[in-house]
Amino acid sequence: MNLREQMTALAQRSQKAARALAKLDAATKNKLLLAMSDGIEKAADKIKAANAKDLEAGKKSWLSSAMLERLTLDEKRIADIAKSVREVAALADPVGTTISETTRPNGIRIQKVRVPIGSILIIYESRPNVTVDAAVLCFKTGNAVILRGGSEAIHSNLALAEAMNVPGLPANAITVVPTTDRAAIDELLKLDELINLCIPRGGEGLIRAVVEKSRIPVIKHYKGICHVFVDRDADLDMAERIVINAKCQRPGVCNAIETLLIDAPLAGTFLPRIEKALAERKVEIRRDADWQTEYLDLIIALRVVNGVGEAIEHITKYGSAHSDAIVTNNKATAERFLREVDSSSVFWNASTRLADGGQYGFGAEIGISTDKLHARGPMGLEDLTSYKYVVTGTGQLRE
Amino acid sequence: MNLREQMTALAQRSQKAARALAKLDAATKNKLLLAMSDGIEKAADKIKAANAKDLEAGKKSWLSSAMLERLTLDEKRIADIAKSVREVAALADPVGTTISETTRPNGIRIQKVRVPIGSILIIYESRPNVTVDAAVLCFKTGNAVILRGGSEAIHSNLALAEAMNVPGLPANAITVVPTTDRAAIDELLKLDELINLCIPRGGEGLIRAVVEKSRIPVIKHYKGICHVFVDRDADLDMAERIVINAKCQRPGVCNAIETLLIDAPLAGTFLPRIEKALAERKVEIRRDADWQTEYLDLIIALRVVNGVGEAIEHITKYGSAHSDAIVTNNKATAERFLREVDSSSVFWNASTRLADGGQYGFGAEIGISTDKLHARGPMGLEDLTSYKYVVTGTGQLRE
Repeated sequence: MNLREQMTALAQRSQKAARALAKLDAATKNKLLLAMSDGIEKAADKIKAANAKDLEAGKKSWLSSAMLERLTLDEKRIADIAKSVREVAALADPVGTTISETTRPNGIRIQKVRVPIGSILIIYESRPNVTVDAAVLCFKTGNAVILRGGSEAIHSNLALAEAMNVPGLPANAITVVPTTDRAAIDELLKLDELINLCIPRGGEGLIRAVVEKSRIPVIKHYKGICHVFVDRDADLDMAERIVINAKCQRPGVCNAIETLLIDAPLAGTFLPRIEKALAERKVEIRRDADWQTEYLDLIIALRVVNGVGEAIEHITKYGSAHSDAIVTNNKATAERFLREVDSSSVFWNASTRLADGGQYGFGAEIGISTDKLHARGPMGLEDLTSYKYVVTGTGQLRE
Repeated sequence: MNLREQMTALAQRSQKAARALAKLDAATKNKLLLAMSDGIEKAADKIKAANAKDLEAGKKSWLSSAMLERLTLDEKRIADIAKSVREVAALADPVGTTISETTRPNGIRIQKVRVPIGSILIIYESRPNVTVDAAVLCFKTGNAVILRGGSEAIHSNLALAEAMNVPGLPANAITVVPTTDRAAIDELLKLDELINLCIPRGGEGLIRAVVEKSRIPVIKHYKGICHVFVDRDADLDMAERIVINAKCQRPGVCNAIETLLIDAPLAGTFLPRIEKALAERKVEIRRDADWQTEYLDLIIALRVVNGVGEAIEHITKYGSAHSDAIVTNNKATAERFLREVDSSSVFWNASTRLADGGQYGFGAEIGISTDKLHARGPMGLEDLTSYKYVVTGTGQLRE
C-alpha cells in the first residue's frame, strides 16, 4: 500500500469507529474513560521508556532544552495526565441532549438533538499531554480521533494511545498516525468524505499550511494579537491591574495582550504610571511597533489613541479577532466597544487572560477559535458535537 | 486591474460593508427591507427589460424551454419576489440575542451573543429569484453578500441588485459579481481572509468544484438520496400515504425519496399494494438499482430488507445523510432508527418532504446542509449568524 492508500484505510477505520462510538451511552463512555486513566497509570513505565527514546532522538537532533523539557514525561506528569482523564469522565456528556424542541401546527414534533461530529483529525506540535487531552475530549463526545502530533514525540504518543486502548473501547476509536512522514498529513487533508473536522494546534505556519491544503472543514486560530484599551473614564487602579495581568501573568500564550491602547486624555496620568509598572516587571515597551507581531514575550506595543472610536479602528485593522478588552466606567463607551469590536471574546473591565474554556466553565478546552463558523472563542465539549433534527409524526405529509 | 485584483477589491468592499451592516439595528434593517421590496416593484419595467436581454441570449444559445421558463421574470413573479422580501422583514432578527448567559464564581458575567458572520458568497445556478432571496436573508442577519448566479441570468441579477440598492443601504451590502468569467469564482474562493462563508446551491458538479477549490468554509449538500423504510410494525395505510407523498408530491427536489425499503415480512402484503399505488401514479419501480442515483423524477428504487438493522445499514452505505424516514408503530424500532441513522433529518411516521425551513418554522430557508459543522439540515436565519463571548467584570484577573 502506498501512503495514500494507507491513510485512506486509516480514515475508513476511524469513520467506522465513529459509527460505533455514536451508539455508546454516557455511562459506558465514562467507565471506559476511568479505565483509560488507570491504563495510563499502569503503563507509566512503558510510557517513560518510549519517552526516553524520543528524548534521546531529540538530543541527537539538537532540540532546545526548552523543547526537551516540554517533551519529558516523568512520573508526576503521567499522574497528572491520568488525573485529567478522570476529570473529563466527571463532566456532563452533551451528546443526546435536546437543543430545542417545537411542535408545528400540523402536529409534527421537531427536536434538535446533539450528536457526535464523526471522525476528527487533530494536528499539533505540542507536548505529548495534548495526545491524551484531545483523545479523551473527542471520545467523551462520541467522536473518533486521528492524532498527528510532532514527529519528535512519536514514541511517547504511540505509547499513550496504547495505554488508552482499554478492553471494550471500539476498535480505532483513538488512532495515532503511525508515520512521521509529512506527506501523510497532505493525504489525510484530502479525505473530506471520511474525516469530518480538522483542528490544527500550533504555530501560525503549521495552521496556514493545513488551511491551504485541507478539503476538510478546519477550526483554528492563527495567532492572538490581543488588546487592552484604557478609556478616559477608566478606574486607573483597575486598569493597571488588568494590563499587568493581561501582559505578564503568562506572556507566552495566545490570550496575553500584545498591544496596550491608551486614550489621549490619559497621556499625562496613566501613561507614565503604566510605563513605570511595566518597566518594574521587565516588560519592554515599543511605541513604534508594527502592531501585528505576536511577541509571546515580555514585550508590549503601546499606542495613544483618541477615544474609543480610534481604539476600535486600531483593533479592527491590526487585531486577530481573538480577545480584546476595554477598561472604563462609562457604560455607553463600553457597550460601543463590546458591540463593534468583532473578536471572539470581548471584555469590559476584566483581563483577556480569562478567555479560556476552564474560566468560562466548560470544564475542558479543545482549543480556541477565531473563525466565525461552527465554533468561536474557547471550545468545550459542546463544540465537539453537531446535531440532527428528529421529527416525530402521526402520518403527516407535505401538502 | 487583472481578475485577481478585481475580485480582491470586490471582497474588500464587501468585508467593509459587513462591518457597517453589523452595526444596524433590527428596525433600521426592516425599514430598508421594506424599501427594497418597494424598489423591486418600482423597477419592474427595468427588471423585465434586463430579463428580456437574458432570454434573448438564452434563446440564441439554445437553452431548453424549461430553462427559459425558469429564467423568465414576468409581472407576477416580480410581485411575488417583492412580497417575499416583505415577509423576511416581518421575521424576528436573531442578531444581538443572547444564546446563553452565565456568571462565574469570580463574578464575571459571560454572555454568548449572536453576531453576523460577515461576508457571505452565494454561488448558484438557479432562477433569478434566488438573487433576492439570498440577498435579503443575508441582509436581515447583518451580513454582506456576494452573489454569483448563472451566467444566463446576469442581466436579470444585476437589475434586481440595483433595485435593492435603496438609499440608506450601506455601500456594497449586496454585490452581484459583474462578470460571467468562471475564473472569477476561483479567485473569490481563495479569499478566506475577506469572505467568511460560501454557500453553493446547485447541482453536484458545481458543489464539488467549489469544495475542491475553496479555502473559505463551505456549507452545502451534494445530493439527496432519501429513504422511507416501511417496518413490519407499520400502519400500512399510513405507510402508503407517506411513500406516495415522499416520492410524488414534488419528485424533482432534494427531500423527495429515491429509495423505498420494505421489511421482509411485508413482501406479500405491502409490497404488491405499494407497487400498484406507485404504478397508478406512473412511477417506474427499479428493483435492481445502484441505490446511489438521485433520479429527481418519477422513478423509485425498491429493496426488501430484513428488519430495521438492515435498513439502517443500507441507508448508512448508500444514503446522502439528508432526510430519511421510518414508518412503524413499534417505539423501540423507531428509536433505534432515529438514533442510528446519521442524517441531518430523521423522521418517524412523517414524510421526508417536510425537511424544509418553512415546515420547521424558520420562516425562510437559505439552503439545506448535510455537513456536520456549523449548520445541519434546513438552514434559517440563525444559521446565518455566528456568536461572540461578551464578558463583563469588575476588574477580574487570571489568578
